[in-house]
Amino acid sequence: MLEIGKVRADELVKEFGTPLIAYDLDVLRGILRQYFESFRSDSLKTGVIYASKAFSCKAMIQLISEYAMKLDVVSAGELYTAKMAGYDCKNIYFHGNNKSEEELKMAIEYGVGTVVVDNLPEAKMLARLSAGATYSIHTLLRVNPGIDAHTHKYIVTAHDDSKFGVLFSNEEDITEIVKTLSSAENIVFDGLDAHIGSQVFDKRAFVAEVRMMFQFAGLLNEKYAIKTKVIDFGGGFATYYTKEDEPIPIDEVCRTIVETCETENEKIGGIVEQILIEPGRSIAAAGSYTLYTVGFTKKTLNKNYLFVDGGMSDNIRPALYQAKYDAIVVGKEEMPAAKTYTIAGKCCESGDILIEDIPLPETKTGDIIALPATGAYCYSMASNYNKLTFPAVIFAENGSARIVIRRQTLEDLISREV
Amino acid sequence: MLEIGKVRADELVKEFGTPLIAYDLDVLRGILRQYFESFRSDSLKTGVIYASKAFSCKAMIQLISEYAMKLDVVSAGELYTAKMAGYDCKNIYFHGNNKSEEELKMAIEYGVGTVVVDNLPEAKMLARLSAGATYSIHTLLRVNPGIDAHTHKYIVTAHDDSKFGVLFSNEEDITEIVKTLSSAENIVFDGLDAHIGSQVFDKRAFVAEVRMMFQFAGLLNEKYAIKTKVIDFGGGFATYYTKEDEPIPIDEVCRTIVETCETENEKIGGIVEQILIEPGRSIAAAGSYTLYTVGFTKKTLNKNYLFVDGGMSDNIRPALYQAKYDAIVVGKEEMPAAKTYTIAGKCCESGDILIEDIPLPETKTGDIIALPATGAYCYSMASNYNKLTFPAVIFAENGSARIVIRRQTLEDLISREV
Repeated sequence: MLEIGKVRADELVKEFGTPLIAYDLDVLRGILRQYFESFRSDSLKTGVIYASKAFSCKAMIQLISEYAMKLDVVSAGELYTAKMAGYDCKNIYFHGNNKSEEELKMAIEYGVGTVVVDNLPEAKMLARLSAGATYSIHTLLRVNPGIDAHTHKYIVTAHDDSKFGVLFSNEEDITEIVKTLSSAENIVFDGLDAHIGSQVFDKRAFVAEVRMMFQFAGLLNEKYAIKTKVIDFGGGFATYYTKEDEPIPIDEVCRTIVETCETENEKIGGIVEQILIEPGRSIAAAGSYTLYTVGFTKKTLNKNYLFVDGGMSDNIRPALYQAKYDAIVVGKEEMPAAKTYTIAGKCCESGDILIEDIPLPETKTGDIIALPATGAYCYSMASNYNKLTFPAVIFAENGSARIVIRRQTLEDLISREV
Repeated sequence: MLEIGKVRADELVKEFGTPLIAYDLDVLRGILRQYFESFRSDSLKTGVIYASKAFSCKAMIQLISEYAMKLDVVSAGELYTAKMAGYDCKNIYFHGNNKSEEELKMAIEYGVGTVVVDNLPEAKMLARLSAGATYSIHTLLRVNPGIDAHTHKYIVTAHDDSKFGVLFSNEEDITEIVKTLSSAENIVFDGLDAHIGSQVFDKRAFVAEVRMMFQFAGLLNEKYAIKTKVIDFGGGFATYYTKEDEPIPIDEVCRTIVETCETENEKIGGIVEQILIEPGRSIAAAGSYTLYTVGFTKKTLNKNYLFVDGGMSDNIRPALYQAKYDAIVVGKEEMPAAKTYTIAGKCCESGDILIEDIPLPETKTGDIIALPATGAYCYSMASNYNKLTFPAVIFAENGSARIVIRRQTLEDLISREV
């Protein structure tokens, strides 16, 4: 039977109910360790930044900090969560295309280590606000190398008209931003940041990104005497959702990036001192499951429906990105597939289908279904659609489980009403 | 300048901040009045049911009850909200393809008037639970007439393999469900319910639905002696999002449905006593706006971006359904369009675009942008993606505004963490 953190899935359900988001920390720690151990270089400083938008809560932030991970936040909310988790804000990288003045002030007040500046107006705003800082704010500039990593169009981020960053070819803005930051009080310009996409399966995309970024750092140095000491390559590291996916092992992709960086840095005279990556999905999805209880079942002309007690409210990804998930019927892991099922949620909407046409053992009302790899971008995108409540989230390891976010109650649903 | 409930939009922003969801009750009441006045018949009882999944909060439920509206709920959460609003539960219709046993028990405990039964297992469960009821639970059976109303595939609900209801052709299940309900203690079988789609622009789709439903009621009567006293035609009434939309006026579509019902009912011997419709979107969208503040702006090769302080977290519909919205630059309503802009949100995701390529007057940082018709399926589908907080919701009328749902705070974001 499926075990999560060496606790039987049926016992988790008995204790915490469904829908339940459960993380197997034994597996998750394995991935964190791989990042910690394999993204290392003899000639370059390295750092791994957890992109907390994949899944942000105090317990998760405390967990990644055990592996010396830095933290990517994209809003006041993520920053606040990190602070409340006791995380050291100097290791935070603040991203986003449209930070508000309030958010930048809050970042400075909290002592955020690095602001990843997206655009010229932001550089100017930060330069104005930094006068009030009592420390040196490090900055990176988000650039757009124009790589299309062939993922779903919603999650490709470096096409030419992306809302993020400044295109390589826009040297006028780039030099003005660097000048603005470098000449401001209490701001240090460190280098460049980019992000080529999500769920990238081809190592060559990262290699291409690394080469382009180093070449561009070389160009900035030669043409404008701009020193790029730090390059942040962003995220995009793929995770395993279904058997159609063949993600590159984490240690392998880390080593490839590091080796390419070492080679490329030599070519430009070794001006880069530190390299960074920003995994999110590949961490938060590792060893994670959503557990649902099967309610009513229905046979239509072409479909055998299994209705579960959650749906697009706790996992919008199938409807939004046509994302594919696998499913396990708890207690029937060893049984052969008997039928092709469609797993639908309980939202009053035809599009609320979690998995279309998946072969499973004979499944009936009361069975528990586990969807693996739902730990990333599911809870973080959850809604109260149909006034369904947010599921509980638990961490399990070594045979015991603890709740990290309690299930929302009906009272919670109307608590902000006046 | 744009006024909402006769309050200037800039004053609303000053008082309540952005992003802000604002309902103009002067307009909304107009729509409610139209439904109240025009869905009437001399020979049939009529009823209008507000589909609260479009936007559910206590204030909204109290508002629709001023117009004698019945209420459609689809979950324990929507039912609880109705109860807390002081709404009379006997006027509630409980929908959904996967009601849990707990939800059906709660419905009986609250005295919910009508359960819209989706499938045979639900009929059996309700028949088992109804023994404990102290009143007669009315029931309708959700059927699927197999009409495709040509809307976006996610919101078409009556295709043959829909997860909702029982296909007309599945007479075996239909008769067994009716038998199960009719023979159960404390359950009354009233008739049929269907739903042909959302945002239906063609009156003929409703006419076709009405004819099919009455013909089917005739067939059930003749072939199985099943009396259909009530028919609920569901929703689908279109609203105006952009100038490409030409919704049928509410009073016109109501009169068409009523007239067709009267004619069709005569044909089957007048067995039907009551007809119902279930508008949601056309009510909740009426006179509604989301107000955003423009933050940074950016020029890319082909786009002029305006970044606003919300996005897919408060309005997932453009990303999820490719839904189109219009935009108004507050204070510049009379100015001619100067440029084609793309309005993007602040979420760290390329797909977070609210409106692509819309001609607007010259717009700059600090301007307020209003998106009309966002009152339906925006707040109700809102998430904390990127840990952005839920916007505030206000009702404005007759020159004054009141808050109905307060803005979420940073503290709220972590309040369920253990």
